[in-house]
Amino acid sequence: MEDSLRKALSEKQAAVDAQGGAVRELKASGAPKDAIDAAVQELNALKLEKASIEKQLQAALTNGNDNALSRDAFRQALVNTLERRLFYIPSFKIYRGVAGLYDYGPPGCAVKSNVLAFWRQHFVLEENMLEVDCPCVTPEIVLKASGHVDKFTDLMVKDEKTGTCYRADHLLKDFCKEKLEKDLTISGEKAAELKHILAVLDDLSAEELGGKIKEYGITAPDTKNPLSAPYPFNLMFQTSIGPSGLSPGYMRPETAQGIFVNFKDLYYYNGNKLPFAAAQIGQAFRNEISPRQGLLRVREFTLAEIEHFVDPDDKSHPKFSEVANLEFLMFPRGEQVSGQSAKRTVLGEAVSKGIVNNETLGYFIGRVYLFLTGLGIDKERLRFRQHLANEMAHYAADCWDAEIECSYGWIECVGIADRSAYDLRAHTDKSGVPLVAHEKFAEPREVEKLIIAPVKKELGLAFKGNQKMVVEALEAMSEKEAMEMKATLESTGELLNHRLEFGRIIYCLYEHSFYTRPSKAGDEQLNVFRFPPLVAPIKCTVFPLVQNQQYEEVAKSIAKSLTAAGISYKIDITAIMDILEGQLKRFVCHCIT
Amino acid sequence: MEDSLRKALSEKQAAVDAQGGAVRELKASGAPKDAIDAAVQELNALKLEKASIEKQLQAALTNGNDNALSRDAFRQALVNTLERRLFYIPSFKIYRGVAGLYDYGPPGCAVKSNVLAFWRQHFVLEENMLEVDCPCVTPEIVLKASGHVDKFTDLMVKDEKTGTCYRADHLLKDFCKEKLEKDLTISGEKAAELKHILAVLDDLSAEELGGKIKEYGITAPDTKNPLSAPYPFNLMFQTSIGPSGLSPGYMRPETAQGIFVNFKDLYYYNGNKLPFAAAQIGQAFRNEISPRQGLLRVREFTLAEIEHFVDPDDKSHPKFSEVANLEFLMFPRGEQVSGQSAKRTVLGEAVSKGIVNNETLGYFIGRVYLFLTGLGIDKERLRFRQHLANEMAHYAADCWDAEIECSYGWIECVGIADRSAYDLRAHTDKSGVPLVAHEKFAEPREVEKLIIAPVKKELGLAFKGNQKMVVEALEAMSEKEAMEMKATLESTGELLNHRLEFGRIIYCLYEHSFYTRPSKAGDEQLNVFRFPPLVAPIKCTVFPLVQNQQYEEVAKSIAKSLTAAGISYKIDITAIMDILEGQLKRFVCHCIT
Repeated sequence: MEDSLRKALSEKQAAVDAQGGAVRELKASGAPKDAIDAAVQELNALKLEKASIEKQLQAALTNGNDNALSRDAFRQALVNTLERRLFYIPSFKIYRGVAGLYDYGPPGCAVKSNVLAFWRQHFVLEENMLEVDCPCVTPEIVLKASGHVDKFTDLMVKDEKTGTCYRADHLLKDFCKEKLEKDLTISGEKAAELKHILAVLDDLSAEELGGKIKEYGITAPDTKNPLSAPYPFNLMFQTSIGPSGLSPGYMRPETAQGIFVNFKDLYYYNGNKLPFAAAQIGQAFRNEISPRQGLLRVREFTLAEIEHFVDPDDKSHPKFSEVANLEFLMFPRGEQVSGQSAKRTVLGEAVSKGIVNNETLGYFIGRVYLFLTGLGIDKERLRFRQHLANEMAHYAADCWDAEIECSYGWIECVGIADRSAYDLRAHTDKSGVPLVAHEKFAEPREVEKLIIAPVKKELGLAFKGNQKMVVEALEAMSEKEAMEMKATLESTGELLNHRLEFGRIIYCLYEHSFYTRPSKAGDEQLNVFRFPPLVAPIKCTVFPLVQNQQYEEVAKSIAKSLTAAGISYKIDITAIMDILEGQLKRFVCHCIT
Repeated sequence: MEDSLRKALSEKQAAVDAQGGAVRELKASGAPKDAIDAAVQELNALKLEKASIEKQLQAALTNGNDNALSRDAFRQALVNTLERRLFYIPSFKIYRGVAGLYDYGPPGCAVKSNVLAFWRQHFVLEENMLEVDCPCVTPEIVLKASGHVDKFTDLMVKDEKTGTCYRADHLLKDFCKEKLEKDLTISGEKAAELKHILAVLDDLSAEELGGKIKEYGITAPDTKNPLSAPYPFNLMFQTSIGPSGLSPGYMRPETAQGIFVNFKDLYYYNGNKLPFAAAQIGQAFRNEISPRQGLLRVREFTLAEIEHFVDPDDKSHPKFSEVANLEFLMFPRGEQVSGQSAKRTVLGEAVSKGIVNNETLGYFIGRVYLFLTGLGIDKERLRFRQHLANEMAHYAADCWDAEIECSYGWIECVGIADRSAYDLRAHTDKSGVPLVAHEKFAEPREVEKLIIAPVKKELGLAFKGNQKMVVEALEAMSEKEAMEMKATLESTGELLNHRLEFGRIIYCLYEHSFYTRPSKAGDEQLNVFRFPPLVAPIKCTVFPLVQNQQYEEVAKSIAKSLTAAGISYKIDITAIMDILEGQLKRFVCHCIT
């Protein structure tokens, strides 16, 4: 609707201009008064029509803004409650804080620890995964091999006078949104152009971003000073290992690298067999240029990554049937390109139709769905979106994100990607240690015949006096041995990566669990979290109904049993009726009286 | 014994020298042959006696060395097993690793997660502590206030030619130990001097350390090059927050600061009441100059810290009676100074006699004892050692370390300290935000009368035209209000800090759980861990007794129930009898057949 209104408005504007011209011409040529009056009347009618369209467009945009306003108000109520109840605290608050760093306070810690425990149960224990726990401090060579030293960057511009830094794409995004929301005069074409920029923002190169910033005359938001051209800023926190200053290191940007570098040992631990899965959970770091979106984009966060190492020729999964009948919102590439929306799809059909690349990928999509809904994420606000071709790395076979809808829109919370053998190959190349799986084939698969033809001259140079012995040994090598040598080099395990960002999941969970309602007396607005018992920070409150020693003793003994069972509780000795309602504010699941 | 032998040896050496002189004199003066022969005979007898003492001293020292050797062999067997079974993996091994960084492999992760879960149950849940979870990245101002930017240092020396760095105290320590163990010629006085240096090593200033290094002619271990004078090296990993390069930050060296800066919010969360306890567990970092002692001294580790905020006038503890009857090894200051050893002591008596400063401190000593022995730490190799006066910070009231004996000696694993109000005051001063508790006294305690006498001249300067109004307001302030103002300023909560280093505890636990024994057939050495079920990485193995479908189905359904109950297991379908013994190698607690 907005588009057709913009079009109508600019057509009407053109008509007004044309008619205005006509009136001026009539006057200049000394036309009769009747003719002039008639032309002016038509001009006024056109102006009225234009004003009416303007009003409609204004209303359409305001309507969007109103939605945004009510989303903002909801978020503000939620964030206020979260901060007042110490779910979150801006870190180092007494020192005016640091953007993008947050503390979890007591109930936040309890929720996080419940979510982590469920993750360990649901993934690590259930699938018998191999868990590892590596340091955050990582030497440069590892992140050079993974590509992070060269490519883990965002494009930055600087205020040319004050030196203040901004993310180039953020400034362009803000400009486009502002124009679209507030400027009624832009043409339909211009609006379409701005919308296109918003859609492809992530794909723009430094040159393209810089060009647009120049073209639109975008300046520094605070000072209106001119901006530098965009240039890449590496998002890793850099440090130095040891006292010499000669060993650069970084705080890891992801936990996966710790798994890759241990592939050989883990493969051995698994009895030299594929497939197996390894998992790591821990802190990861991202030195954002200018953090936004509050709790969603932070500089330090808890990340869990799982790598499923599979035989590249067999990506079936023995437990796929357990999730094949699940039905939920899926948003494949085709539907995105053709402008449709996500549809309820049966997982088994998505795999059998080839929409999801293989059973192993499908199995873990299903497991992630069960994990998120088990935590209390709303099924209707959760979708699995397939990456478009231009979003995926060139080596990736297929990628799906679990996206959760919250007041910021659809947020990527879990990534599930078939990354083929890229990461293992990169570390093999850099370290010289072959990270390969030695498959024993059930039946021989390779039929080509290896002909062993030692290049005697080169061997002579290398082995000098022992040349004859070496040549004899090589020639004596049976074909079978030679085949084994070759197979060793060939069967690199491939991997499916699966990455969960807990901070984002927990924040979305708060949004999906939060609502406000008036108190019984109607004089107060109550902020309520409706948590499933699994994640509730305090599982129950113990109320001695009467305040006397006997009841308090009973309460104490109940409390003791709860602690022994690992159940968090509060004892509340204030009069029971006053507070039963109060408890609803306080994220408590069960009451014992 | 070593001392008396050294003394005897040097006396005998002196006697030999004297007699040698006498013989030479007799010969020079042309004394009769009888006299010379007698003197030579006596000289030879003395030499024989000296040789015998030398032998004894050698034996005494070797005995110590033999013990050290068998300790080393035990440790080597343990570390080999830990690495082969992937309890630990040197981090980034395929890139030749980084000193002081270790990964936990799958069983190590399981043990760690069990220990952490028990910690949360034993401390946080049981005591209703307020848990927080703050980022590792910390802005400089916080660590400036805490003193870490200025004082968290070790003294370093550099090889003057190659620039290689060493810890100055390590070099001096190595020199002294080597001399004491291998050099028979040093006098008893010299030996005493070296032993004294080893005892006071931690207290030596840069000048004193440098002086000793010069005096003893200590050079760089690898090159024998001369060394620079010692200078402080800050042990924090430094980084930069955000893109500007203007906000220095560090990876936190401890987790306690995150609690202190949140004191105000936590106090409010606790209903503005003392006492309460807050806890934080997470990664902490220490950029060691040259890490040693394998798994005990690492550059990144998991640390739990608990702060008990108490009323400075009342450090009693309501649950002290629950631990008062515990009896274990305590090693108070007095016993250390007078050269005695740790003695079994009843905790309640230690508190009532004033050996332990107060009940709250005593209560947490008792809880730490229960925690460590609950994990499987050997009671006989665990002691609580009180800090000597020179070990404590000037503001600390009393400090006790839980030390665990392992092959490296007695290792500090938990620190429990009454730190008074130092940390809260430091952050109050630096941030300008008063971190104080507002106590409401049950009955008025202060009886002094406050006389409000505004210094009119100063007020005049400060308030200019408003002076009169301010003076009137001040004079109108009731005494009650003034008292409150004063009380507010006065009742800063004091705190007891309690710090657990999990890596050390877990390593000591491995030492206390590990033994070797021959296999039944006697042809193999088995390496066995005897873990309590609480920490065992794999709680049980499920063995289908016969290999057929029916048994395997049962095994699967048992496995499912185990997962649901959060119990880790392995299914082993190899023939049962072969492996029952094998399981003993594999840290498995229970078998289900």
